[in-house]
Amino acid sequence: MATKQIPYKTYLTEEEMPKYWYNVKAHMKGGHAPFINPATQKPCTKADLQTVFCDECIDQELNDTDELIEIPADIRHFYKTFRPSPLVRAYFLEEMLGTPAEIYYKFEGNNTSGSHKLNSAAAQAYYAKKQGLKSITTETGAGQWGTALAMASAFYGLHLDVYMVKVSYEQKPFRKEVIRTYGANVIPSPSDTTAAGRKILKEFPGTGGSLGCAISEAVEKAVSTESCRYVLGSVLDHVLLHQSIIGLECKTALDRFGVTPDIIVGCMGGGSNFGGLIAPYMGEKLQGKNEIEFIGVEPASCPSLTRGKFVYDYCDSAKTTPLAKMYTLGCGFMPSSNHAGGLRYHGMSPVISQLYHDGYLNAVAVEQKKVFDAAVSFAKCEGILPAPESSHAIRVAIDKALECKRTGEKKKILFGLTGTGYFDLAAYKQYNDGVMNDYIPTDADLQKGFDTIPKCAVNEKLL
Amino acid sequence: MATKQIPYKTYLTEEEMPKYWYNVKAHMKGGHAPFINPATQKPCTKADLQTVFCDECIDQELNDTDELIEIPADIRHFYKTFRPSPLVRAYFLEEMLGTPAEIYYKFEGNNTSGSHKLNSAAAQAYYAKKQGLKSITTETGAGQWGTALAMASAFYGLHLDVYMVKVSYEQKPFRKEVIRTYGANVIPSPSDTTAAGRKILKEFPGTGGSLGCAISEAVEKAVSTESCRYVLGSVLDHVLLHQSIIGLECKTALDRFGVTPDIIVGCMGGGSNFGGLIAPYMGEKLQGKNEIEFIGVEPASCPSLTRGKFVYDYCDSAKTTPLAKMYTLGCGFMPSSNHAGGLRYHGMSPVISQLYHDGYLNAVAVEQKKVFDAAVSFAKCEGILPAPESSHAIRVAIDKALECKRTGEKKKILFGLTGTGYFDLAAYKQYNDGVMNDYIPTDADLQKGFDTIPKCAVNEKLL
Repeated sequence: MATKQIPYKTYLTEEEMPKYWYNVKAHMKGGHAPFINPATQKPCTKADLQTVFCDECIDQELNDTDELIEIPADIRHFYKTFRPSPLVRAYFLEEMLGTPAEIYYKFEGNNTSGSHKLNSAAAQAYYAKKQGLKSITTETGAGQWGTALAMASAFYGLHLDVYMVKVSYEQKPFRKEVIRTYGANVIPSPSDTTAAGRKILKEFPGTGGSLGCAISEAVEKAVSTESCRYVLGSVLDHVLLHQSIIGLECKTALDRFGVTPDIIVGCMGGGSNFGGLIAPYMGEKLQGKNEIEFIGVEPASCPSLTRGKFVYDYCDSAKTTPLAKMYTLGCGFMPSSNHAGGLRYHGMSPVISQLYHDGYLNAVAVEQKKVFDAAVSFAKCEGILPAPESSHAIRVAIDKALECKRTGEKKKILFGLTGTGYFDLAAYKQYNDGVMNDYIPTDADLQKGFDTIPKCAVNEKLL
Repeated sequence: MATKQIPYKTYLTEEEMPKYWYNVKAHMKGGHAPFINPATQKPCTKADLQTVFCDECIDQELNDTDELIEIPADIRHFYKTFRPSPLVRAYFLEEMLGTPAEIYYKFEGNNTSGSHKLNSAAAQAYYAKKQGLKSITTETGAGQWGTALAMASAFYGLHLDVYMVKVSYEQKPFRKEVIRTYGANVIPSPSDTTAAGRKILKEFPGTGGSLGCAISEAVEKAVSTESCRYVLGSVLDHVLLHQSIIGLECKTALDRFGVTPDIIVGCMGGGSNFGGLIAPYMGEKLQGKNEIEFIGVEPASCPSLTRGKFVYDYCDSAKTTPLAKMYTLGCGFMPSSNHAGGLRYHGMSPVISQLYHDGYLNAVAVEQKKVFDAAVSFAKCEGILPAPESSHAIRVAIDKALECKRTGEKKKILFGLTGTGYFDLAAYKQYNDGVMNDYIPTDADLQKGFDTIPKCAVNEKLL
């Protein structure tokens, strides 16, 4: 058990791969506050959501009782093209740091989408196909999610329209090309294919677009197209559910060596990777079975948990979605364009928000130059060039390991390495050229975002 | 054994990873013709090579007696950052093709360099460090090799100067940025840092450079710098030796399931990947122990084996290297710039050339549009976006599997998937846009290349 030499990389066998996802809400007393239909100010019903989302995803979204939800065999089949992912004992990083801590990371970047996003894309494309749909739509900013969904759509034979923020479409031509190679249709947003897009184009003819606008177009396209639904890559509970395969694989591998982490670290944008990584461990903690310290890491430039408000807000900046109770900077908050490191979402998964609110996890905000310092040190000793997003987790894992060096504690630190930085080299160039800046919003900057939080009935006592 | 269900992916354990490289020359009666010093027209001695290359690499280069050469523990240690690589049973590809054939591939792309190149970079950087050198130099075109060597140099703490063909330096800024991130110095070639570079810049002020020119600069820099040597990423015997880890891992994994391939397919540029993939199987064939069909695949635009001459030629277009007896299109042959798919080398590994000449392996030349057809089909069903180079092997593996579909034969086909196409999206864009052209040189085109083959004493009876 614990005395066996732990290999540098551990891959589960295909038989050991999880057959069930882990629904942490089964152990959250009362789950989290329900989605609110902004028109009625009442909790969303399944019917409210069915015009937009696939039926089975809605069932998963609303399920807060079943701990285990079966992964259909067809999805497990597709998972084999890129899973199991390796659990790595970071011997080289430990050696470089000279720390007595044990560092482990789960690497989700060994697939063409370059990140963990494919775990949920696979599931959502499958459910769309199973429901008999012909096509799905989504939006993408940097492009990882669009790539992941294009791969899954190609595999299951679905048509996919990706609304890509126009400035990314133009500045990241290679991401777009991967998506096209997988047969999906990429539309720069705003476009003239939707009323929402045409309205924006008329008002702001030269705009580079925004994620909010792209979401609006993708949703409009889905609800106005026969046999079509919209698909989202983070934030929602069913996305976290699909990502629980990350934590489940970790746990199976670590249990083999008798290792329980003392600290689990993950980066947070919408929260799906972190939620998936911690799921089975958090489920145990909620049952009083462990005392693991969970640390979610966000950028100091977009500090949803550490400086946001726990209120009802729209999930998108175009205010087209239901209201979710979450930590938010306001749906109109725009992180500085100085910020190169991803994780630019104004809100946070309602599950993660509730767990944070209830004191079950900690959050840390880090500055991007320190994040890239960690990324480059990591790349040189561990070989993998990490995504800027993932590097937020690396930064804090290193900081914790250096704390152990000072105290002599032999803590076991696990972090999520969500992806690779192959399409983020403009950010690395900024760092290499020494022209990367940090950006921390002032209280006045934040107030502008908070002012965009809807002042509606459900927020009356919260704001 | 053979009845056990073969998983989609097989990873060896770290204990099962090879501890010896496989030197196929031990079974080639007489090895291949020696390198010739162009000045003396006599075989190169170790001393001839020592100003340029590391001592231990020269010993390996000249060793044609030992079948097994130990992989030092330090290299095996570094290998763990990216090895073992998966052997994949291509169930999804088989299903898509509807073939009774079994298809396997060894995937070498799951590392930041994106290809198999890191196998030899690791070894060569280690030997340079062990020899007490302070720095090494190399050239790079597309950038995979430069990236691989930068990673290995960072790991072993060596300074690295990479002379990058200027047109690539300018057109592929992201590759350059990966190399810089690993701490290497990237110099656009031609440069004013060498006499060779200055001469070219004076003659052709606006030139975008060439691999030949970059080699000249890298070699000049190495021989004129204290405690520095030059490092090459393909063609040479010691590079093929290091790449034999690919074939050895394949064989260990396939032997576990009682599988011996009927056909082994690999793409060929300088020949290091193909030479490494086939090494242990070819060693057996040379001893009469198997009848495997080996197929090297080259682009129709640069058909070294299928249309070249088996003569002595320079390894570089600047005519600075020793002469090697190999299949060559002439060191001055320039493949058309229409050709997007890599594998643009005028010559071929002397080992591969000799084996081909002696009838132990076959060669096929394929056109690039058909190569990209195969690449895209493969990406959609197997998930991995392949490098254009690797896709040459995919094309022929698919063709062979379709032959089996017609004949009903259940052949076992193994191919090498050398890398990913994440930095080759300009080529995929050409394909997606329908503007990719094929290019097949005419006999007159080839004659221009043949005219650059040196008319020296050792070539007297060959030309």
